[in-house]
Amino acid sequence: MEFSSKLLEKAVYEMSQLPGIGKRTALRLVLHLLKQPKEQTGLLSQALLNMREEIKFCQSCHNISDVAICEICSNQNRDHQLICVVEDIRDVMAIENTGQFRGIYHVLGGKISPIDGIGPSQLNIPTLVEKIKTGNIRELIFALSSTMEGDTTNFYIYRQIKECDIVTSTIARGISVGDELEYADEVTLGRSILHRVPFENSFKNT
Amino acid sequence: MEFSSKLLEKAVYEMSQLPGIGKRTALRLVLHLLKQPKEQTGLLSQALLNMREEIKFCQSCHNISDVAICEICSNQNRDHQLICVVEDIRDVMAIENTGQFRGIYHVLGGKISPIDGIGPSQLNIPTLVEKIKTGNIRELIFALSSTMEGDTTNFYIYRQIKECDIVTSTIARGISVGDELEYADEVTLGRSILHRVPFENSFKNT
Repeated sequence: MEFSSKLLEKAVYEMSQLPGIGKRTALRLVLHLLKQPKEQTGLLSQALLNMREEIKFCQSCHNISDVAICEICSNQNRDHQLICVVEDIRDVMAIENTGQFRGIYHVLGGKISPIDGIGPSQLNIPTLVEKIKTGNIRELIFALSSTMEGDTTNFYIYRQIKECDIVTSTIARGISVGDELEYADEVTLGRSILHRVPFENSFKNT
Repeated sequence: MEFSSKLLEKAVYEMSQLPGIGKRTALRLVLHLLKQPKEQTGLLSQALLNMREEIKFCQSCHNISDVAICEICSNQNRDHQLICVVEDIRDVMAIENTGQFRGIYHVLGGKISPIDGIGPSQLNIPTLVEKIKTGNIRELIFALSSTMEGDTTNFYIYRQIKECDIVTSTIARGISVGDELEYADEVTLGRSILHRVPFENSFKNT
């Protein structure tokens, strides 16, 4: 693409560095900003800069937070003996939205993935292991993606803490609510039979 | 969506003001920036601000430009008697990419669309009419979208300049190169028959 302006070209280039934004989309977004009042570009730039410069991560669970210890970790009404291990903060938001979990979280910041060059040392695993070895933890719930990388990460953590006297569990794998059986893959269907639950439990919500 | 940080929420909100970017996508983009070095966010913000503050529009054709008269308008090798009317600068880039046009452009900045509240006065139509009435123009090519709004805009301009002694034309409507006839819509197919071209012309490239 040839641009008639270096300023435009630079803006499109930087915008297209974002994931899933190609040159054409970047151009569309940048031209949209050009049509809007200057203030909107100012607000966007400032919000991004402020966020990047000033955002903090909770010292306990590594969730994004504006203070040193996040709201969830500092909430005394939550069960601090129950830790849910998740990949990133979007998973915290997703689980919080269900309203089904009253424990605290531990955000790993990714999963072990040798292909992408991500090993255990780049993730927040040491702090988790230490928390479990020194703290008063009752149960650890693995809530990672049901992929090879997720399973690897689960297993890596499990091996480090299996000597500790805590319960470990993973979130249930099975048929999604609303799904038809004929479209489910074999592995999911197989696991949903293996890990069947007593019928009386199946319509309880909490 | 509930955010654990006001800074994050603000950044996601501003990002989601862009067209086609919902809250979820905005969150993904913002979290990506958080994982990258701080410099990248700085570069993006600065590029957007610089572009919005300093970009100029060519005084002659209203194309985006870093100087008062854009490269195309100041190029003496181009045919200044031949004007191609387009909607926005993306169309200029698209036509330039074909390498088939050696005239100059006039960017309207949109098309007449009462539903979106866009009337002729918000577009760069007066400067075009003036250019035609006072200048030494031979031909005007309408290269607007083949939609109701595009046709309306074409016709509005045409009525203003029909007294002038110039040729007006529109880009050809027809079957796209590579298309199969059976999938073409009736109107396009009908027009492609009405406006058929001599066979000897059909394989000439210029």
